[in-house]
Amino acid sequence: MSSANAVREDRLWQRHADMAKLGGTPKGGVNRQALSPEDAAARNLLMSWAKARGFSIFTDVMGNLFVQRAGIDANAAPVMSGSHMDSQPTGGRFDGMYGVLAAFEALEALEDAGIRTKRPVMAVAWTNEEGSRFQPGAMGSAVFAGTYKLDEMLQVKDWKGITLKDALAETLKAAPAPMRDGKPGFAVDSYVEAHIEQGPRLENENKTIGVVTAIQGSRRYIVEIDGEEAHAGTTPRSARKDAFAAATRLAAAMYATTTDADDTLRFTIGRVEVSPGSPNTVPGKVLFTIDMRHPDNAVLEEHEKALREIVATRAKPCPARIERVTNVAPTYFDPKVVDLVRAKTEALGLSHMDMPSGAGHDAMHLAKLCPAGMIFVPCERGISHNEIENATPADLAAGTRVLVEVLEALANR
Amino acid sequence: MSSANAVREDRLWQRHADMAKLGGTPKGGVNRQALSPEDAAARNLLMSWAKARGFSIFTDVMGNLFVQRAGIDANAAPVMSGSHMDSQPTGGRFDGMYGVLAAFEALEALEDAGIRTKRPVMAVAWTNEEGSRFQPGAMGSAVFAGTYKLDEMLQVKDWKGITLKDALAETLKAAPAPMRDGKPGFAVDSYVEAHIEQGPRLENENKTIGVVTAIQGSRRYIVEIDGEEAHAGTTPRSARKDAFAAATRLAAAMYATTTDADDTLRFTIGRVEVSPGSPNTVPGKVLFTIDMRHPDNAVLEEHEKALREIVATRAKPCPARIERVTNVAPTYFDPKVVDLVRAKTEALGLSHMDMPSGAGHDAMHLAKLCPAGMIFVPCERGISHNEIENATPADLAAGTRVLVEVLEALANR
Repeated sequence: MSSANAVREDRLWQRHADMAKLGGTPKGGVNRQALSPEDAAARNLLMSWAKARGFSIFTDVMGNLFVQRAGIDANAAPVMSGSHMDSQPTGGRFDGMYGVLAAFEALEALEDAGIRTKRPVMAVAWTNEEGSRFQPGAMGSAVFAGTYKLDEMLQVKDWKGITLKDALAETLKAAPAPMRDGKPGFAVDSYVEAHIEQGPRLENENKTIGVVTAIQGSRRYIVEIDGEEAHAGTTPRSARKDAFAAATRLAAAMYATTTDADDTLRFTIGRVEVSPGSPNTVPGKVLFTIDMRHPDNAVLEEHEKALREIVATRAKPCPARIERVTNVAPTYFDPKVVDLVRAKTEALGLSHMDMPSGAGHDAMHLAKLCPAGMIFVPCERGISHNEIENATPADLAAGTRVLVEVLEALANR
Repeated sequence: MSSANAVREDRLWQRHADMAKLGGTPKGGVNRQALSPEDAAARNLLMSWAKARGFSIFTDVMGNLFVQRAGIDANAAPVMSGSHMDSQPTGGRFDGMYGVLAAFEALEALEDAGIRTKRPVMAVAWTNEEGSRFQPGAMGSAVFAGTYKLDEMLQVKDWKGITLKDALAETLKAAPAPMRDGKPGFAVDSYVEAHIEQGPRLENENKTIGVVTAIQGSRRYIVEIDGEEAHAGTTPRSARKDAFAAATRLAAAMYATTTDADDTLRFTIGRVEVSPGSPNTVPGKVLFTIDMRHPDNAVLEEHEKALREIVATRAKPCPARIERVTNVAPTYFDPKVVDLVRAKTEALGLSHMDMPSGAGHDAMHLAKLCPAGMIFVPCERGISHNEIENATPADLAAGTRVLVEVLEALANR
């Protein structure tokens, strides 16, 4: 039996259903934010499955969780696959989790088919990919790849002031795993991540597999506007320093300047905090986040200049600042891995298309460490970061069949 | 000794300082929201002072707190003065509290001067004037005057889902007072409320006393916009239903349409909730409040039409609704009370001007029940609903001297 044929669609689907209960929301999505009790529960469930199959398990000081199926050559660097188990506050059940469960299914399929590989094959769940509770996102994989510094990340605080270090200690206490000594990061032969597309292209073009060639660049900003709290009934307009009126001027100008003709630039104001938030007090402070992405770094650079100009000129009489908090350049995946994904997809007779990823993924950090690639499967209407996010059992299994064939080939090089 | 001469500036100022400790903030303001533990502490402090002077105390089922100095005629309806002790979340130490402490100082001054009045004179602290925790504001006085229904108000919930009924029970347990039987409301001869201006006019015109002739009308609204949560990196602009982008269009149009030439209209967006509030998720829902005020009801009516038109036409592709939650018509105070305030101010040799109130006050509800009026004193730069709100001991005492003379005259009619 081939490894692809050993992939079991029903088992993979059931595992998604079991995981969706952890942080499950009434609308069918999940709220399983990084290093929450729900995240810990997901770690425990994955480890229980791994133990039942006799795979080895370990974690590192960033809380990245590894499940390994041994190879023939004990000294060979592993082939790795995975994604993340944390979600947005109102997230879907497939974003990230599919990549972890597809990797685990690949390990099980190799086991069930009795296939031995030269290199170990490893499934990984990276800590805090979403970046909604602790910023920046893709933190576990970035520390693993040496892109972010461990010590700095451990000091990052969520909006309640809890440090990542403390939240991580809680999580590892609730979901204990053998700890790998030393800093995160070790030699990896190659990395392939499966993920739902999170966009509408595969569905629109009626393709099952997206052969991912690149990830667009992304930058994140925080804009802060100071006003002056004042009584809503007595303070004349001319005497106001209304931070939300200023924020409205900035946001309106920003939406206008980011309206590109070919609709490739992604501009999002996602979090907005208006203080003190009383209906009859003129807002004294506003803070909002900007998420901006494009495949071309020069375009991002040009638009950043425009945003800075708007903040400098349109907030008057309120002082305003813009700070860039992350800047991730576009990633181009290894052509050998990309070609292998395409070849295995064709060999399995699945429809496919080459495409860049609109979203950032852990794979962009691993791509700095080793040859890397990604496999996309469709999601309904392209909707993600939403409780109604959906995908079909057949598409999820198809992506996993491609994945296991690719991993097997890489592990036997 | 006249009652005005018995007013003690130092005592009044010290009482403000003592009250400012209850819910005091690092910036020198107060966070003493309605029916909070801090509100209960303020009630206990006021009652301890009242007991020390031998005044009688009682509360009603809305938690309004009354302190009475007996009159000669036991059957005569009382003359009443007061305001509120609750604050904005980041409020000042004078808004409301001054009116309560000025009324209490008036009772003490009458006592110290050995003046007996025909009618009882009463100080009152009304429950929940601010309306920031429980909407609408001026709730205690409105129920007292029969404008709002007790049963409906008891069911009002704060943003955490706690009912006013439960919060009130907690408060009355923590600050127990003899309960007056029956529904709130009883015969009142007349009502005079002292308050800081909360606007810049007295300071700008260098006057000590504002003789308040009216209160402008105010309306409050909630605007709700539905979008669709989506991934910030993958969802093309054309496929988005971005609730905050729609909110920005509405807010920008609203700010533009409420820019009147004579700067009399007050338009404020004070509370803004953007969900789910994740930097990399397109907002799926926005809720914001509008507070709009003007002395002329017809102007408010006209602008409400414009706001409704904006919500109906500018939010596409997001469905949006606007709901009016309060509508308080302008109040005109009793000319006899207004004339008496002006006459007593002149007799004391204090500078003064007639003016309408920009803010709503408990007096607007009492004005439906009995002859009523208000006395304003300046506050620094007109700033209120702000922790830096400030007023001088001399101005506060001046206003109280006018108040006690007016109350004495009314109580001896």
